Amino acid sequence: PDDNPRNYFSLNPLNRCSEKRKDKTWLRNKVLADNTRFIAFHNLSVLATKLPKGTSSQRYELARVEMKDIELYMAANPVTVFLGIEQTNRHTPLTFEEPGLFAVDLSLAEEDKVLSLMPDSILMPGYPAAMQLRPEEAGIYAEARSMLAWHDRYQFCPTCGSPSRLEEGGYKRVCEDMECRSHNGVHNTCYPRTDPSAIMLVVSPDGKRCLLGRSKRFPAKMFSCLAGFMEPGETIEDTVRREVEEESGVIVDRVEYHSSQPWPFPASLMLGCIAYATTDHIKLDEEEMEDARWFSRPEVVQMLTRQHPQGLFVPPEQAVAHQIIKTWVRRTANL
Amino acid sequence: PDDNPRNYFSLNPLNRCSEKRKDKTWLRNKVLADNTRFIAFHNLSVLATKLPKGTSSQRYELARVEMKDIELYMAANPVTVFLGIEQTNRHTPLTFEEPGLFAVDLSLAEEDKVLSLMPDSILMPGYPAAMQLRPEEAGIYAEARSMLAWHDRYQFCPTCGSPSRLEEGGYKRVCEDMECRSHNGVHNTCYPRTDPSAIMLVVSPDGKRCLLGRSKRFPAKMFSCLAGFMEPGETIEDTVRREVEEESGVIVDRVEYHSSQPWPFPASLMLGCIAYATTDHIKLDEEEMEDARWFSRPEVVQMLTRQHPQGLFVPPEQAVAHQIIKTWVRRTANL
Ligand SMILES: Nc1ncnc2c1ncn2[C@@H]1O[C@H](COP(=O)(O)O)[C@@H](O)[C@H]1O
Ligand SMILES: Nc1ncnc2c1ncn2[C@@H]1O[C@H](COP(=O)(O)O)[C@@H](O)[C@H]1O
Ligand SMILES: [Mg+2]
Ligand SMILES: [Mg+2]
Ligand SMILES: [Mg+2]
Ligand SMILES: [Mg+2]
Ligand SMILES: [Mg+2]
Ligand SMILES: [Mg+2]
Ligand SMILES: [Zn+2]
Ligand SMILES: [Zn+2]
Repeated sequence: PDDNPRNYFSLNPLNRCSEKRKDKTWLRNKVLADNTRFIAFHNLSVLATKLPKGTSSQRYELARVEMKDIELYMAANPVTVFLGIEQTNRHTPLTFEEPGLFAVDLSLAEEDKVLSLMPDSILMPGYPAAMQLRPEEAGIYAEARSMLAWHDRYQFCPTCGSPSRLEEGGYKRVCEDMECRSHNGVHNTCYPRTDPSAIMLVVSPDGKRCLLGRSKRFPAKMFSCLAGFMEPGETIEDTVRREVEEESGVIVDRVEYHSSQPWPFPASLMLGCIAYATTDHIKLDEEEMEDARWFSRPEVVQMLTRQHPQGLFVPPEQAVAHQIIKTWVRRTANL
Repeated sequence: PDDNPRNYFSLNPLNRCSEKRKDKTWLRNKVLADNTRFIAFHNLSVLATKLPKGTSSQRYELARVEMKDIELYMAANPVTVFLGIEQTNRHTPLTFEEPGLFAVDLSLAEEDKVLSLMPDSILMPGYPAAMQLRPEEAGIYAEARSMLAWHDRYQFCPTCGSPSRLEEGGYKRVCEDMECRSHNGVHNTCYPRTDPSAIMLVVSPDGKRCLLGRSKRFPAKMFSCLAGFMEPGETIEDTVRREVEEESGVIVDRVEYHSSQPWPFPASLMLGCIAYATTDHIKLDEEEMEDARWFSRPEVVQMLTRQHPQGLFVPPEQAVAHQIIKTWVRRTANL
């Protein structure tokens, strides 16, 4: 529907209907509606079922569980988040009777009880397993998993240490201590956290090569874009320059935003950029990085298509890194 | 030094030297070094001094306090954050002996004691007062204020409710309970929080008008871009489409990133965009918004230059909104 590049975890067909989050009666009825479904999690692994065998690498879809099957667990009031409503056409006004979708944390149940909710199901852990979901659902998964990860780690008010409780369909946590100063004014302590992080393809001063590196945690032979968390008081472009210099010693001047992608492990926002270097001497950050090198376009093409003679490769198409690298390769057909 | 547009709070001449944050000895020595200075805060207001009278609207600069003047307060171990080192030229390697800058929270002292640290000083509250700082220092302020605001609201571990203590030059908080699961692996609960938020100029389907609105909190007669916080599982472009539709009922298709700016009230990252609408019927969000209208280019020029017949205006040049609006006006000289 638009010209912007779409990344894997960004395809979310739901209308979040945030205006309904404060309407407790509506939410209670929606939870109970016949056409409502639940995406079930167990310790942040999602219940998924195998798709009929195909050629694509997307081999699973999210299981959609009905209320009648989880009623027993719902009595214990597990963390439940209103994800949104299935809207088939953005231009047709919603009736709000369309199917609703919730995420529910069934960690209180035993693993095999959760698996028994759906035939042929698995509990799919996070990265990289979740790359195997149908792309049409990857955005629903991203929303659901990052919300449940937030509730998992933020059960106490960071301002006073008291327990907090869930409100607004799971999109808010409120301190239980009515004397806490978090009740005066609007504070980010009450809202889900998203960590912006920059990821960048660095182009060499002569425009002919790009910089790829290996963090110590990478699988053998994989190279990817450099990346790092934004810090308070920075722009995206500042973060790109700082992280490239920290990790590789290379100095970057101009930065071009490419696209963004939520990365729900647990709650990053990847900001994909193309960065133009003015120096090419590499001085590796030995603490974080294992290697960083300039690669020529032909070699990068081999890595993208998994035909590199030494078996080097880059992350799969579901990662922003892949998409930025591909954009550079497309733009440099003359090399 | 680069082609990217620079916004007000993004001009930060410091090198953050993040690799020094883990080096306790180096940090301790740096705090005590003769050429080290401290930016002092009191309840998130910053100590600033008046500049000699000029014509510009930037009338204050940050006070740079010496250790000998605050030694007494330092004994109480106030929150102190290492902001970075003054690097005059990015291409000259640092010796690490260059002047260091720290932020210090003197809320434990009385207000007039803090004011007495520097002749002719004021304690400058947050927005909009901080718009009056020298632009060369606005980025230092942004880094310092958002870090202190984080320490102010996040003194307890959100995972278990225990108190947490400051580490890594103030860039990390660690749970005091050694049994807490926050000690296993790397978790965002330990790191400063930044809230990404989209702010967008919406262009009408015919390209001739743009959409500006008034939130209920705005000063009289001011109109600005629509804006809203990113939610978990969204891309920047998704947030732009959702917030525009929520606040005005207008449907947006293509979204173009313009620039970003840290907004330290308390810790937002403003992501400025230009958004292209496919519909123009306005249906106002009555809860958040007081008004939203399509404005023609000539009227927007009057608002930018404060020459509008009814006195309508847009935010000052220090705000991203101003810069995005100006970009649209520059691009549409034919209208
Ligand atoms: N929000 C965050 N989540 C996880 N790690 C963070 C965060 N902010 C800063 N860090 C630190 O950043 C390191 C990763 O480096 P980088 O991704 O290059 O910035 C981690 O090992 C942490 O020490
Ligand atoms: N991180 C956050 N900080 C403050 N308010 C938030 C945050 N996240 C969501 N909100 C909510 O967003 C509202 C402002 O609306 P908007 O800026 O249009 O998204 C606030 O009144 C809060 O209810
Ligand atoms: Mg990194
Ligand atoms: Mg980093
Ligand atoms: Mg790094
Ligand atoms: Mg808003
Ligand atoms: Mg919002
Ligand atoms: Mg809004
Ligand atoms: Zn509290
Ligand atoms: Zn803890």
